[in-house]
Amino acid sequence: MNTKTFALKGTICFSASPQELSIAEDSWLVCENGRCAGVFPTLPEKYQGIPCRDTGSCLIIPGLTDLHLHAPQYSFRSTGMDLELLDWLNTYTFPEESRYADLSYAKKAYRIFADDLKKSATTRASVFATLHVEATELLMDLLEQTGVKTLVGKVNMDRNGSPVLQEASAGESIAETERWLTEISGKYRNTAPILTPRFTPSCSDELMRKLSEIQKRTGLPVQSHLSENPGEIAWVQKLCPTTHFYGEAYDQFGLFGGQNCPTIMAHCVYSTDQEIALIKERGVYIAHCPQSNTNLASGIAPAKRYLQEGLNIGLGSDIAGGTSISILRAIADAIQASKLHWRLTDESRQPLSLEEGFYLATAGGGSFFGKVGSFREGFEFDAVILDDSSLPCPRTFTPRERLERLIYLGDERNIAGKYVEGSRIF
Amino acid sequence: MNTKTFALKGTICFSASPQELSIAEDSWLVCENGRCAGVFPTLPEKYQGIPCRDTGSCLIIPGLTDLHLHAPQYSFRSTGMDLELLDWLNTYTFPEESRYADLSYAKKAYRIFADDLKKSATTRASVFATLHVEATELLMDLLEQTGVKTLVGKVNMDRNGSPVLQEASAGESIAETERWLTEISGKYRNTAPILTPRFTPSCSDELMRKLSEIQKRTGLPVQSHLSENPGEIAWVQKLCPTTHFYGEAYDQFGLFGGQNCPTIMAHCVYSTDQEIALIKERGVYIAHCPQSNTNLASGIAPAKRYLQEGLNIGLGSDIAGGTSISILRAIADAIQASKLHWRLTDESRQPLSLEEGFYLATAGGGSFFGKVGSFREGFEFDAVILDDSSLPCPRTFTPRERLERLIYLGDERNIAGKYVEGSRIF
Repeated sequence: MNTKTFALKGTICFSASPQELSIAEDSWLVCENGRCAGVFPTLPEKYQGIPCRDTGSCLIIPGLTDLHLHAPQYSFRSTGMDLELLDWLNTYTFPEESRYADLSYAKKAYRIFADDLKKSATTRASVFATLHVEATELLMDLLEQTGVKTLVGKVNMDRNGSPVLQEASAGESIAETERWLTEISGKYRNTAPILTPRFTPSCSDELMRKLSEIQKRTGLPVQSHLSENPGEIAWVQKLCPTTHFYGEAYDQFGLFGGQNCPTIMAHCVYSTDQEIALIKERGVYIAHCPQSNTNLASGIAPAKRYLQEGLNIGLGSDIAGGTSISILRAIADAIQASKLHWRLTDESRQPLSLEEGFYLATAGGGSFFGKVGSFREGFEFDAVILDDSSLPCPRTFTPRERLERLIYLGDERNIAGKYVEGSRIF
Repeated sequence: MNTKTFALKGTICFSASPQELSIAEDSWLVCENGRCAGVFPTLPEKYQGIPCRDTGSCLIIPGLTDLHLHAPQYSFRSTGMDLELLDWLNTYTFPEESRYADLSYAKKAYRIFADDLKKSATTRASVFATLHVEATELLMDLLEQTGVKTLVGKVNMDRNGSPVLQEASAGESIAETERWLTEISGKYRNTAPILTPRFTPSCSDELMRKLSEIQKRTGLPVQSHLSENPGEIAWVQKLCPTTHFYGEAYDQFGLFGGQNCPTIMAHCVYSTDQEIALIKERGVYIAHCPQSNTNLASGIAPAKRYLQEGLNIGLGSDIAGGTSISILRAIADAIQASKLHWRLTDESRQPLSLEEGFYLATAGGGSFFGKVGSFREGFEFDAVILDDSSLPCPRTFTPRERLERLIYLGDERNIAGKYVEGSRIF
C-alpha cells in the first residue's frame, strides 16, 4: 500500500444530501490510493495495519471549494469598500491589477496569497489571475507548491479597461493566451488553466469568438461573471443589444456551459427566469459570493432558489469583493444573506439551513472538480481536520453544533490538518 | 505625576465628527490623570519625562463600546441559528439562561466571557446577566477584575418565560432586585448596576411600575429591547392595547429615557416615525446590533437614518443573537447591513461610511458612559492599540486603509494594548 492509503480517526461529517448531514462520531475515514473508501465505526479487517492519524475529538469534513476568487486582489482586500462594482473596478481594482506587470510585486503578493490559501480549509479553487502571462505563471508555480488543486485563469480583457490594464487587441489577448497555454503545458500536477474572459464589458466580440475557438479545440473550462450588479447588467444590454439577457452575451459565442464547456459564472444576483433556465439547461455552475455581493452593495443572490431548482451552485470568496478567504466564513455569510433575502425580498423562500450552506461549500462546489466534496466511496480524498478546542465553552455540544460553531467562529487556527486527493498538506 | 499620566506614541485615529476621521501619524497621545490631554505632533514641554509607550507603527484608537450583549448567552453563541426571535428565546435561550441558577456553571461560563471581553477592543459595555442574583454578582466580580467598565443588569422577568426561567411574581422580581442592589452597593469601581426589564412580553405592568419606582429613587440607567421583530411587535401590541407603538409600553411607566433615566434600547429595526420621534425627544440610546438582526432574520435597522436625524446610537454585539464579541466586526457588519438596506429597502439612504461605522463604535456608543469614545481633551482615556503587522501585504496603505483592514480582518490577535480611564489593561 502506498502513502495515499491511510485512515483518519475522529468525528466525521459530510453532506448526505443538500438537506442532511451524515455524522459519525469516533469513526474511521479510510483513504485508499487517494480515494475515499468509506466511513467505518471500526477499521475493517482489510485495512488493519495502514497508517492512522487519530485526531482525537476533532471534526473531519470534506475539503471546501472556492469557486470564485481573484488572487491579485488579495493584496488590497478590506480596503476601498465604499463603491459599487463598476466604480470599484475602475478606482481600486484595475490600478492594483496593473501592478502585476511587475514580477517582483507579483511574487511578494502571490506568495502571501498562496500561503494563506494553503492554511485555509479550501482544497479546490477556481482563480482569476491578471492579464499578465508571466505573473499568471508565477502564481501557478506558487499554487502548485501548496498542494491545493486549483484552476487558474490568465484574464482576457481588450476593451473598457484602463490605460494601465487592457490588452491592445483581441489578437494580442489571444496570442498571449496561446503563449500561456503553451508555456504551462504539462508543467503542473495541482494546477490547470481555465479560460477567463473577465466579463462581457471587458471582452470584444472578436475576443469572445476566438476564445471560444480555443475552448472548442482544448476543451478547457471557462469562468466569468454574470448578472452581479444592475449598472453592469444595463451596460451589457447596451453592448449586446440583440441579447435577451446577460447570459446570452456568453452563450452566443458558445461560452456558457454545455457538456463540452464546463463553466463557472460568479454571482447571478439578478438572473432572470430565462437566464436561470439556460443556466440549468447548460449545467453552468453558479459561484455564490454573498460577502462580495454585500460589500459591493450588489444585492443578495437567490441561492435557496438555485439549490431548490437543482442548479449547480457552490460558494466563492470573491476576493477582493469579499474580504475573507475563508469558505467556512462564506457558509455563514450565505446563511445570513439568505435570511435577509427571506425577510426583505421573498418570504416564500426559507433561508438556507446549516446543512444547505455546508453542502454548497463541499459537494455543491466540489462537483465542478469531479467526484469531490464528499466522503462517499470513490470520491477524491479531500479532507480538513477542524479542532475547536480553542473555542472554550462551559457545556458540551453535539457534533452538528460544533460544526456550526466552527463555521461562525472558526479561523485558520482551527484548521489542524488538510488533505487533497489523499496527499497530506499539513 | 501618578501612573495615570503617560503618553502613547503611534498613529492616532479618532472621530472628528460622525463623517470625519482625525488621523495623526507618528504622534503623541497624552493621558493626564486618566483623562485625555490631547494629541500632539511632538511631546509638549510640560509632559517631558512622563512615561511613554512607543507603539511603533501601531494604530491607536479610542476604546470601543458594546451597548448591548447578554453575558450568559456567550456559552451557546454560534449554535441554534435557525429560528426567529421568539422561538429562539424559548428553544435555546431560556433553557441556557436557566443554567445560571447553578453557580458552578455560571463561574465556568462567565470566566470565559470575562476573559474574552478583556482581550477584545471593548472598553465599555452594557450587559444583560440573568434573573439570578448570585450569578449576576459573580459576573460583576469577574467583570470588575477585567478593568473594562461595564453596566450589568440582573434581568427582570415575571411572565411569559419558561417553567425554569421566570420569577414567581412582580413582588419577587422586585425583592430580588432590591437584594441585588443592596448586596453590591459600594462594592465595585469598574462595574455598576443597570435596571433590566428583559422586554415588554417578559414584564407585567406591576413589575414595570415597581421598577420605575426603583429607577426614580436611585437614578439608575435602564436597558431593554425595542421593535426587533415583527412577531414580537405584534405581541406587544396585544399585551399593551392602549399603546400606539412599542416604545410607549416602556414610556407609560417612565422607563424610556429623559434626563433622569438614561436608557438603552436594543435593535429598533421597525421603529415607526412616532417611535423614532419619542426616542429622539427622550435621548434614548439605540444599540444597533446588525449581526444579531441578521442571524435572527429580524431585518435591518435604518442606522443611517438614526445617525442623520441626530439620534443617540452606538453598536451592540448582542451576544448570542450575534456570534462575535468583536465591536471591530460589528463596525463591518453595520456597514454591510447598511449597504443591503440601501439596495433592498431604501435607496434614498446612502450606506454607512467607514467613518460613520467607526463613530458608532467609539463616540456614538461611548457617550452613554460620559465623555468616552474620543481623544479630545477632557475625555476619559480609553484607548486600544491595534497592530496590523500580522496582516501581511505587498504594498503600503494609508492609516485610514489600515484601519479599514483591521475592521474587516482583525481579531483579538491584533489588539496589542488596551487602556480604560487611564488604567492599562494589557
